[in-house]
Amino acid sequence: MPAPAYDDQNVFAKIMRGELPSHKVYEDDKTLAIMDIMPRGDGHLLVIPKAPSRNIFDISAEDLNAVMATVQKMAHAVVQAFGADGTTIQQFSEPAGGQVVFHTHVHVIPRFEGVPLRPHTGDMADNDSLARHAEKIRAVLG
Amino acid sequence: MPAPAYDDQNVFAKIMRGELPSHKVYEDDKTLAIMDIMPRGDGHLLVIPKAPSRNIFDISAEDLNAVMATVQKMAHAVVQAFGADGTTIQQFSEPAGGQVVFHTHVHVIPRFEGVPLRPHTGDMADNDSLARHAEKIRAVLG
Repeated sequence: MPAPAYDDQNVFAKIMRGELPSHKVYEDDKTLAIMDIMPRGDGHLLVIPKAPSRNIFDISAEDLNAVMATVQKMAHAVVQAFGADGTTIQQFSEPAGGQVVFHTHVHVIPRFEGVPLRPHTGDMADNDSLARHAEKIRAVLG
Repeated sequence: MPAPAYDDQNVFAKIMRGELPSHKVYEDDKTLAIMDIMPRGDGHLLVIPKAPSRNIFDISAEDLNAVMATVQKMAHAVVQAFGADGTTIQQFSEPAGGQVVFHTHVHVIPRFEGVPLRPHTGDMADNDSLARHAEKIRAVLG
Protein backbone atom coordinates (compact mmCIF):
# COMPACT_ATOMS: atom_id res chain seq x y z
CA MET A 1 0.00 0.00 0.00
CA PRO A 2 1.45 3.42 -0.93
CA ALA A 3 1.44 5.93 1.95
CA PRO A 4 -0.25 9.06 0.55
CA ALA A 5 0.95 12.43 1.84
CA TYR A 6 -1.09 14.52 4.25
CA ASP A 7 -3.27 17.06 2.40
CA ASP A 8 -4.08 20.15 4.49
CA GLN A 9 -7.20 20.91 2.44
CA ASN A 10 -9.18 18.28 4.35
CA VAL A 11 -12.28 19.31 6.30
CA PHE A 12 -10.75 18.90 9.76
CA ALA A 13 -7.69 20.97 8.89
CA LYS A 14 -10.08 23.67 7.64
CA ILE A 15 -12.08 23.48 10.90
CA MET A 16 -8.88 23.85 12.92
CA ARG A 17 -7.87 26.89 10.84
CA GLY A 18 -11.31 28.41 11.43
CA GLU A 19 -12.24 28.18 7.74
CA LEU A 20 -15.22 25.94 8.48
CA PRO A 21 -17.56 25.89 11.50
CA SER A 22 -17.91 23.00 13.94
CA HIS A 23 -19.62 22.14 17.20
CA LYS A 24 -16.62 21.94 19.49
CA VAL A 25 -17.07 20.08 22.79
CA TYR A 26 -13.50 19.86 24.08
CA GLU A 27 -10.02 21.12 23.35
CA ASP A 28 -6.59 20.72 24.90
CA ASP A 29 -3.00 21.27 23.75
CA LYS A 30 -2.93 18.33 21.40
CA THR A 31 -6.53 17.37 20.63
CA LEU A 32 -9.96 18.64 19.70
CA ALA A 33 -13.37 16.97 20.04
CA ILE A 34 -16.25 18.01 17.76
CA MET A 35 -19.69 16.66 16.91
CA ASP A 36 -19.88 14.37 13.87
CA ILE A 37 -22.24 16.09 11.43
CA MET A 38 -23.42 12.72 10.09
CA PRO A 39 -24.02 11.05 13.45
CA ARG A 40 -24.68 7.35 13.64
CA GLY A 41 -26.28 7.97 17.03
CA ASP A 42 -27.17 10.95 19.19
CA GLY A 43 -24.04 12.49 20.68
CA HIS A 44 -21.65 10.90 18.16
CA LEU A 45 -18.41 12.88 18.32
CA LEU A 46 -14.95 12.85 16.79
CA VAL A 47 -11.59 13.21 18.51
CA ILE A 48 -8.90 14.78 16.32
CA PRO A 49 -5.20 15.41 16.94
CA LYS A 50 -4.17 19.00 16.23
CA ALA A 51 -0.94 17.93 14.56
CA PRO A 52 -1.26 16.77 10.96
CA SER A 53 -1.44 13.03 10.33
CA ARG A 54 -3.48 11.03 7.86
CA ASN A 55 -4.48 8.01 9.96
CA ILE A 56 -3.19 5.10 12.07
CA PHE A 57 -0.34 4.54 9.63
CA ASP A 58 1.46 7.85 10.20
CA ILE A 59 0.25 9.34 13.50
CA SER A 60 3.01 9.76 16.11
CA ALA A 61 2.85 7.74 19.31
CA GLU A 62 2.59 10.97 21.27
CA ASP A 63 -0.40 12.21 19.27
CA LEU A 64 -2.07 8.80 19.38
CA ASN A 65 -1.76 8.73 23.16
CA ALA A 66 -3.18 12.24 23.41
CA VAL A 67 -6.09 11.29 21.15
CA MET A 68 -6.88 8.19 23.18
CA ALA A 69 -6.75 10.13 26.47
CA THR A 70 -9.37 12.47 25.01
CA VAL A 71 -11.38 9.52 23.66
CA GLN A 72 -11.49 8.06 27.17
CA LYS A 73 -12.52 11.42 28.64
CA MET A 74 -15.28 11.76 26.01
CA ALA A 75 -16.51 8.20 26.66
CA HIS A 76 -17.05 9.10 30.31
CA ALA A 77 -18.59 12.43 29.32
CA VAL A 78 -21.23 10.95 26.99
CA VAL A 79 -22.27 8.46 29.64
CA GLN A 80 -22.78 11.35 32.04
CA ALA A 81 -24.33 13.72 29.48
CA PHE A 82 -26.78 11.34 27.83
CA GLY A 83 -27.08 8.45 30.28
CA ALA A 84 -25.49 6.24 27.63
CA ASP A 85 -25.20 2.52 28.45
CA GLY A 86 -21.92 2.06 26.59
CA THR A 87 -19.79 3.36 23.74
CA THR A 88 -18.65 2.22 20.32
CA ILE A 89 -15.26 3.56 19.27
CA GLN A 90 -14.13 3.38 15.64
CA GLN A 91 -11.12 4.54 13.66
CA PHE A 92 -10.95 4.12 9.89
CA SER A 93 -7.71 4.27 7.90
CA GLU A 94 -7.65 4.73 4.13
CA PRO A 95 -10.73 4.46 1.86
CA ALA A 96 -10.83 0.65 2.05
CA GLY A 97 -10.92 0.99 5.84
CA GLY A 98 -13.88 3.36 5.71
CA GLN A 99 -11.99 6.67 5.95
CA VAL A 100 -13.55 9.68 4.20
CA VAL A 101 -11.69 12.66 5.71
CA PHE A 102 -7.93 12.22 5.61
CA HIS A 103 -6.92 13.72 8.92
CA THR A 104 -6.74 11.16 11.74
CA HIS A 105 -9.96 10.98 13.75
CA VAL A 106 -11.55 8.60 16.23
CA HIS A 107 -15.32 8.19 16.46
CA VAL A 108 -16.89 8.02 19.93
CA ILE A 109 -20.53 6.94 19.68
CA PRO A 110 -22.72 6.84 22.79
CA ARG A 111 -24.80 3.66 22.77
CA PHE A 112 -28.13 2.86 24.38
CA GLU A 113 -29.68 -0.55 25.13
CA GLY A 114 -31.79 -1.69 22.18
CA VAL A 115 -30.79 1.19 19.88
CA PRO A 116 -28.77 0.06 16.84
CA LEU A 117 -26.30 2.35 15.10
CA ARG A 118 -28.04 4.41 12.44
CA PRO A 119 -26.88 3.53 8.92
CA HIS A 120 -24.25 5.78 7.38
CA THR A 121 -26.51 7.51 4.84
CA GLY A 122 -24.44 10.65 4.31
CA ASP A 123 -27.34 12.78 5.57
CA MET A 124 -26.35 15.65 7.80
CA ALA A 125 -27.99 16.09 11.19
CA ASP A 126 -29.85 19.33 11.76
CA ASN A 127 -27.71 22.01 13.26
CA ASP A 128 -29.94 22.61 16.28
CA SER A 129 -29.76 19.03 17.49
CA LEU A 130 -25.96 19.00 17.05
CA ALA A 131 -25.73 22.25 19.02
CA ARG A 132 -27.95 20.84 21.77
CA HIS A 133 -25.92 17.62 22.05
CA ALA A 134 -22.64 19.56 22.08
CA GLU A 135 -23.95 21.76 24.87
CA LYS A 136 -24.89 18.73 26.98
CA ILE A 137 -21.37 17.30 26.63
CA ARG A 138 -19.70 20.63 27.38
CA ALA A 139 -21.90 20.97 30.48
CA VAL A 140 -20.58 17.76 32.04
CA LEU A 141 -16.99 18.62 31.10
CA GLY A 142 -17.40 21.77 33.17
CA MET B 1 -24.41 3.63 34.20
CA PRO B 2 -23.14 1.35 36.98
CA ALA B 3 -19.50 0.30 36.56
CA PRO B 4 -19.51 -3.50 36.83
CA ALA B 5 -16.46 -5.16 38.39
CA TYR B 6 -13.90 -7.03 36.33
CA ASP B 7 -14.67 -10.76 36.20
CA ASP B 8 -11.57 -12.91 35.66
CA GLN B 9 -13.63 -15.79 34.22
CA ASN B 10 -13.84 -14.04 30.82
CA VAL B 11 -12.43 -15.77 27.74
CA PHE B 12 -9.39 -13.51 27.35
CA ALA B 13 -8.35 -13.91 30.98
CA LYS B 14 -8.60 -17.68 30.45
CA ILE B 15 -6.48 -17.43 27.30
CA MET B 16 -3.84 -15.45 29.19
CA ARG B 17 -3.81 -18.05 31.98
CA GLY B 18 -3.38 -20.78 29.37
CA GLU B 19 -6.76 -22.31 30.15
CA LEU B 20 -7.99 -21.79 26.58
CA PRO B 21 -6.07 -21.92 23.29
CA SER B 22 -5.56 -18.96 20.95
CA HIS B 23 -3.69 -18.04 17.78
CA LYS B 24 -1.16 -15.60 19.19
CA VAL B 25 0.54 -13.24 16.75
CA TYR B 26 2.35 -10.81 19.08
CA GLU B 27 3.21 -10.33 22.71
CA ASP B 28 5.10 -7.75 24.74
CA ASP B 29 5.27 -6.79 28.42
CA LYS B 30 1.84 -5.20 28.53
CA THR B 31 -0.13 -6.51 25.55
CA LEU B 32 -1.08 -9.56 23.53
CA ALA B 33 -2.45 -9.82 19.97
CA ILE B 34 -4.49 -12.86 18.95
CA MET B 35 -6.71 -13.80 16.01
CA ASP B 36 -10.43 -13.10 16.41
CA ILE B 37 -12.15 -16.50 16.13
CA MET B 38 -15.24 -14.84 14.58
CA PRO B 39 -13.43 -12.67 12.05
CA ARG B 40 -15.30 -9.99 10.15
CA GLY B 41 -12.54 -10.14 7.54
CA ASP B 42 -9.45 -12.24 6.84
CA GLY B 43 -6.70 -11.40 9.31
CA HIS B 44 -9.04 -9.79 11.88
CA LEU B 45 -7.12 -9.68 15.16
CA LEU B 46 -7.59 -8.43 18.71
CA VAL B 47 -5.18 -6.45 20.87
CA ILE B 48 -5.57 -7.09 24.59
CA PRO B 49 -3.88 -5.51 27.61
CA LYS B 50 -2.40 -8.09 29.98
CA ALA B 51 -3.56 -6.18 33.05
CA PRO B 52 -7.21 -6.64 33.98
CA SER B 53 -9.67 -3.97 32.86
CA ARG B 54 -13.21 -4.23 31.58
CA ASN B 55 -13.21 -1.62 28.80
CA ILE B 56 -12.62 2.05 27.94
CA PHE B 57 -14.24 3.11 31.20
CA ASP B 58 -11.69 1.57 33.58
CA ILE B 59 -8.49 0.89 31.61
CA SER B 60 -5.45 2.83 32.90
CA ALA B 61 -3.84 5.44 30.66
CA GLU B 62 -0.64 3.39 30.67
CA ASP B 63 -2.40 0.22 29.50
CA LEU B 64 -4.43 2.13 26.91
CA ASN B 65 -1.24 3.63 25.47
CA ALA B 66 0.41 0.21 25.36
CA VAL B 67 -2.65 -1.27 23.63
CA MET B 68 -2.70 1.49 21.01
CA ALA B 69 1.03 1.12 20.32
CA THR B 70 0.38 -2.55 19.59
CA VAL B 71 -2.70 -1.67 17.52
CA GLN B 72 -0.56 0.61 15.37
CA LYS B 73 2.11 -2.06 15.01
CA MET B 74 -0.55 -4.62 14.00
CA ALA B 75 -2.09 -2.19 11.47
CA HIS B 76 1.26 -1.94 9.72
CA ALA B 77 1.75 -5.70 10.00
CA VAL B 78 -1.56 -6.64 8.34
CA VAL B 79 -0.85 -4.27 5.44
CA GLN B 80 2.47 -6.02 4.94
CA ALA B 81 1.18 -9.55 5.59
CA PHE B 82 -1.98 -9.44 3.48
CA GLY B 83 -1.47 -6.47 1.18
CA ALA B 84 -4.41 -4.80 2.92
CA ASP B 85 -5.54 -1.41 1.55
CA GLY B 86 -6.54 -0.03 4.94
CA THR B 87 -7.74 -0.96 8.41
CA THR B 88 -10.87 -0.64 10.49
CA ILE B 89 -10.28 -0.37 14.22
CA GLN B 90 -13.10 -0.86 16.71
CA GLN B 91 -13.46 -0.94 20.47
CA PHE B 92 -16.77 -1.81 22.13
CA SER B 93 -17.57 -0.97 25.75
CA GLU B 94 -20.47 -2.56 27.62
CA PRO B 95 -23.22 -4.66 25.99
CA ALA B 96 -25.00 -1.62 24.52
CA GLY B 97 -21.70 -0.66 22.90
CA GLY B 98 -21.33 -4.10 21.30
CA GLN B 99 -19.01 -5.68 23.87
CA VAL B 100 -19.32 -9.44 24.37
CA VAL B 101 -16.14 -10.37 26.26
CA PHE B 102 -15.55 -8.17 29.27
CA HIS B 103 -11.80 -7.74 29.16
CA THR B 104 -10.70 -4.66 27.18
CA HIS B 105 -9.87 -5.47 23.57
CA VAL B 106 -9.39 -3.54 20.35
CA HIS B 107 -10.30 -5.01 16.96
CA VAL B 108 -7.87 -4.50 14.08
CA ILE B 109 -9.48 -5.55 10.79
CA PRO B 110 -7.46 -5.53 7.56
CA ARG B 111 -9.57 -4.06 4.77
CA PHE B 112 -9.44 -4.52 1.02
CA GLU B 113 -10.91 -2.32 -1.74
CA GLY B 114 -14.43 -3.47 -2.56
CA VAL B 115 -14.64 -6.05 0.25
CA PRO B 116 -17.27 -5.19 2.88
CA LEU B 117 -16.98 -6.35 6.48
CA ARG B 118 -18.55 -9.75 6.92
CA PRO B 119 -21.65 -9.67 9.14
CA HIS B 120 -21.17 -10.66 12.76
CA THR B 121 -22.96 -14.01 12.59
CA GLY B 122 -21.37 -15.65 15.60
CA ASP B 123 -19.93 -18.37 13.34
CA MET B 124 -16.39 -19.43 14.16
CA ALA B 125 -13.72 -19.44 11.46
CA ASP B 126 -12.08 -22.76 10.76
CA ASN B 127 -8.96 -23.32 12.78
CA ASP B 128 -6.69 -23.91 9.79
CA SER B 129 -7.42 -20.55 8.20
CA LEU B 130 -6.90 -18.77 11.53
CA ALA B 131 -3.58 -20.58 11.96
CA ARG B 132 -2.53 -19.65 8.41
CA HIS B 133 -3.42 -15.98 8.90
CA ALA B 134 -1.64 -15.85 12.25
CA GLU B 135 1.46 -17.34 10.68
CA LYS B 136 1.47 -14.67 7.94
CA ILE B 137 1.30 -11.89 10.53
CA ARG B 138 3.99 -13.45 12.73
CA ALA B 139 6.21 -13.77 9.65
CA VAL B 140 6.22 -10.02 8.96
CA LEU B 141 6.71 -9.23 12.64
CA GLY B 142 9.89 -11.25 12.48
